[in-house]
Amino acid sequence: MDIEEFRKAGYQAIDRICDYYASLQNRPVVSQVQPGYLVDALPASPPEQAEDFDTIADDFQKLIIPACSLEGILGDLYSSSVSNPGFNWLSSPACTELEQVVMDWCAKLIGLGDHFLNRNGIGGGVIQEQTTASEACIVVCVAARARYVRENPDAKLEDLVIYTTTQTHSLGVKAGLVLGLEVRALPVKPEYEYGLRGDALRQALKEDHARGKRPFVFIGTVGTTSSGAVDNLEEIGQVLKEHPCIWLHVDSAWAGVAMACPEYREYGKLDAINKYAESYGTNFHKWGLVNFDASMLWVKSRRNLTDALDVTPEFLRTKQHDAGLVVDYRNWHLGLGRRFRSLKVWFVLRRYGVEGFRKHIREGVALNEHFASLVRASPDFELVTTPSLALSVFRLKLPSGVVLKEQETTLSALNDLNRAFHTRISAESDKIFLTQTMLNNTFCMRFAVGAQRTKREHVDQAWQLIQASARTAREDWLAKRTRA
Amino acid sequence: MDIEEFRKAGYQAIDRICDYYASLQNRPVVSQVQPGYLVDALPASPPEQAEDFDTIADDFQKLIIPACSLEGILGDLYSSSVSNPGFNWLSSPACTELEQVVMDWCAKLIGLGDHFLNRNGIGGGVIQEQTTASEACIVVCVAARARYVRENPDAKLEDLVIYTTTQTHSLGVKAGLVLGLEVRALPVKPEYEYGLRGDALRQALKEDHARGKRPFVFIGTVGTTSSGAVDNLEEIGQVLKEHPCIWLHVDSAWAGVAMACPEYREYGKLDAINKYAESYGTNFHKWGLVNFDASMLWVKSRRNLTDALDVTPEFLRTKQHDAGLVVDYRNWHLGLGRRFRSLKVWFVLRRYGVEGFRKHIREGVALNEHFASLVRASPDFELVTTPSLALSVFRLKLPSGVVLKEQETTLSALNDLNRAFHTRISAESDKIFLTQTMLNNTFCMRFAVGAQRTKREHVDQAWQLIQASARTAREDWLAKRTRA
Repeated sequence: MDIEEFRKAGYQAIDRICDYYASLQNRPVVSQVQPGYLVDALPASPPEQAEDFDTIADDFQKLIIPACSLEGILGDLYSSSVSNPGFNWLSSPACTELEQVVMDWCAKLIGLGDHFLNRNGIGGGVIQEQTTASEACIVVCVAARARYVRENPDAKLEDLVIYTTTQTHSLGVKAGLVLGLEVRALPVKPEYEYGLRGDALRQALKEDHARGKRPFVFIGTVGTTSSGAVDNLEEIGQVLKEHPCIWLHVDSAWAGVAMACPEYREYGKLDAINKYAESYGTNFHKWGLVNFDASMLWVKSRRNLTDALDVTPEFLRTKQHDAGLVVDYRNWHLGLGRRFRSLKVWFVLRRYGVEGFRKHIREGVALNEHFASLVRASPDFELVTTPSLALSVFRLKLPSGVVLKEQETTLSALNDLNRAFHTRISAESDKIFLTQTMLNNTFCMRFAVGAQRTKREHVDQAWQLIQASARTAREDWLAKRTRA
Repeated sequence: MDIEEFRKAGYQAIDRICDYYASLQNRPVVSQVQPGYLVDALPASPPEQAEDFDTIADDFQKLIIPACSLEGILGDLYSSSVSNPGFNWLSSPACTELEQVVMDWCAKLIGLGDHFLNRNGIGGGVIQEQTTASEACIVVCVAARARYVRENPDAKLEDLVIYTTTQTHSLGVKAGLVLGLEVRALPVKPEYEYGLRGDALRQALKEDHARGKRPFVFIGTVGTTSSGAVDNLEEIGQVLKEHPCIWLHVDSAWAGVAMACPEYREYGKLDAINKYAESYGTNFHKWGLVNFDASMLWVKSRRNLTDALDVTPEFLRTKQHDAGLVVDYRNWHLGLGRRFRSLKVWFVLRRYGVEGFRKHIREGVALNEHFASLVRASPDFELVTTPSLALSVFRLKLPSGVVLKEQETTLSALNDLNRAFHTRISAESDKIFLTQTMLNNTFCMRFAVGAQRTKREHVDQAWQLIQASARTAREDWLAKRTRA
């Protein structure tokens, strides 16, 4: 492909993306295809001879077409035009330095303390090479383990334990699987909105120390995936002060960007994070206007990362690295090379400004408050937890007058009804996709606002669909019980 | 940004990429900036108010600009227009299925056996979420460890050992750091071109088993980064047949794409890979026309990955997954979400065809043969190893009549001269960037061909620059010795 062919195909790509965005409103939110549709539609082997780019672009339109801010797409476009392995500063100085700057911008945007800034030379932030918070969690556990073993040379890997809560994202379990270490999920209670309290942590530590186990990292969460729960990081920080070997990591993959607005910082436990956390992670690609992916990690001490992960073979040595002048981000994460991800974050933060970014977050919270008020006003539905920022967890109530069957509890009947409702709405509408969750054995549905183009009318439409599906689902469920 | 603003900014981006590619020939190959240039040029905090996109694009041009196939850029552009978290099949069926198809295409292109194809339902291929072969190596070690511990429940993590050779890429050491496991680098010999022989492996196993250690994975290489060395996988496979608990992984990050040409398959030990390897990895973003990144991993048994890595929380359960109908690639790698990387590979393979892809590989090898013939014909330079595909490793010879100083050996003098040469050519020319390497204490330079736009004239120009730098470097080096 020569440059003029690329220009033509590039304009065409831009036009098609425009057409796609213009048509978004009318597209189904869930894919309508059956497993194997694409495997069957494509040849089993690559073509022997070269194909025309028009044909290829048509197939994209026909077979692939499947939303984020348009600024982010431009960032990715510029990013992929740059051959940029990012092994070290020298191979990609702009990639390294823009990331240092942008990570400081993001830290300031969400109110992180100065000790997390790259500018201070001790702590710092990095966009993880993995697309999601899972890598950040593995990296943190590796650094925490290395620090722990340094300080406790007699510790055996078999005795180390990663602490999470039962509400922690599966990234905790995955880190355990990857590292071959035990994971203990501490139980949380509905009366504390599924956030962990200090006492529960203290009790677990006592038990584990008594059986010779060595918890070395606690993964706290601000805004769990299931219900937006927030661990009580002030209490947890106080408990961990007595155990300085245990690393406190705070995962705020979804909710972290909300801290851009000062009014949500208390809810998000920002003070405790700044006071107690060794590391903090959030994803700007969830609710932060940046297209997939931009998973960010900040640490109080970059040495903890490089001590655990530094590998510098001869062919990657440079005079700048040897002189300690530059950051070689490869030693801050699992991989070696890296994409130029800071570019799209830079584009988004400049195009929106702090003002525009906050406006976007506030709109998400306001729309969710609107949704929650609809649920509260409804005789048929109830909120399972207090709405958290832009997320509501809700369920259908049992119809009045329902008589429990033998061996049935109110909870099991509720779960049965809500599963029936969820199956129905998933099957009958291509306009809404509600994900389910289990909160201590309670089946519930999640409603989250975050996309830039979501308006009040969309929430109202969603509510209409939910109500309509609920009516028929409830009738069918009741009829089935009567027949049985 | 509305759709029409995006269209304008998108056309502008395409035009600027065209301008950039048109000017590539005249740009320095190494960045000319000093550490901190960008950190100093940018504000410390994000802008409060939104900025105009023209201003942002101008800053990209001015501050960032710094190559790959143009088809790959288009693939990435389409890819980032698609909101595609890729958590599971349902959230992104096209992403999953295109990857299944394209990985089979790539497997067939490079001659991998049918047992590595997704189509067979037992083995299969996946594009790793990490940008580089490092993740593939970690994933393989995790799967190999899980299998080993399943089969040897008494094994302690402290006794497990990852086997590499001294020539294995640093990904081996990094996997050990990440997993907290011992790594043993087996020594290789110049007379076998730095490839490992079966006897050396057998000897190491004997020693380690005698001291109670448990090697559980051997990472072999076809085409090392340093010198393109190839481990003797036929002999290694024979040795490992006696130790079925040890997993054979073959890393061919750079050289794997060359197997697209049947004439290089014997050199690349394809038969032994197909006969003995549990897993095989290569990167299409190095020499395979795909822009960064596309790091691929194939396994004989996908169960070994999912048994080690499957985490399916409630909110990610889907009826297709529960029914076993679909591949959920998140359980084949470390992260949870994934980018739509198969798109650019699909574009490249279709636009080039097998024919065009082979032509590109053959041109790289031919250009390197040309370079090697220039080195062989030169009285001043020598090849350190036999050229491997598109890579030559060479060094300056000692000028005739040089008298060794006290405590100096021929090797130390040679290393000293070559370091002086390397420092000079790195400093005085912005048109060439030679990476160094150490082969068993021998300092050498690497010359690799792989970019799509490299022509014979570029190799000749590089050789002129190398000769000119060598002349002055040698004169200075001799003069300094005389003065000393």
